[in-house]
Amino acid sequence: MVTKQLNGSVDDADLTRADSLAREIFSDIANKWAFLIIETLGEETLRFSVLRNAIEGISHKMLTQNLRMLERNGLVGRTVHPTVPPRVEYRLTAPGLALRQTVSGMCDWTHTYIGQIEASRRRFDD
Amino acid sequence: MVTKQLNGSVDDADLTRADSLAREIFSDIANKWAFLIIETLGEETLRFSVLRNAIEGISHKMLTQNLRMLERNGLVGRTVHPTVPPRVEYRLTAPGLALRQTVSGMCDWTHTYIGQIEASRRRFDD
Repeated sequence: MVTKQLNGSVDDADLTRADSLAREIFSDIANKWAFLIIETLGEETLRFSVLRNAIEGISHKMLTQNLRMLERNGLVGRTVHPTVPPRVEYRLTAPGLALRQTVSGMCDWTHTYIGQIEASRRRFDD
Repeated sequence: MVTKQLNGSVDDADLTRADSLAREIFSDIANKWAFLIIETLGEETLRFSVLRNAIEGISHKMLTQNLRMLERNGLVGRTVHPTVPPRVEYRLTAPGLALRQTVSGMCDWTHTYIGQIEASRRRFDD
């Protein structure tokens, strides 16, 4: 649901507005790396290295940046265990788990339509 | 659902693989502009200028690029009416409408959690 306010004031929840908080959150989160991190974490608590190995092609920098962004938005919790060296683990919070349902929906959608999409790409590129 | 193949061959539907078709599709579609276009189109048939006005902040170039990408992947249909000047209209296809359910879920999620996210951002930035 995209809400549209007509009275001219800024509505923080209005995604159609360039300066809304909702748009800012959307800009942060709607990217493939964030989605793949959310999907991979699922209900598990995982270390950085495990996440990095599970998501082929993600760079150290991209994983660090996206985990930090997800932590800032309260979607991922980060726990530092006082071992030597410190063990750092990540898990989805309640809002993160709620978003995961949406992300999983997109993964399922990709699996369902991959054949149609491939055919469409071939026609378009011909 | 992220599937992981263990036999070393490339599975096109395996999002965890950097070289899978599923990852390529995900890379194309998981971005805020594509999501906002899908959400705004909904079940309507809209002209470029109407879309552009509805999504504040989207540039002509970004809208053109994303519509083309969505058309290539078969999510958006484009109709050119032979008027002078030609009238070009866009609508979601069946796969596009199916993905819209997921995108709407993310919009709803943003509305539900916006307060919690804002509070988390404040704590993080302090």
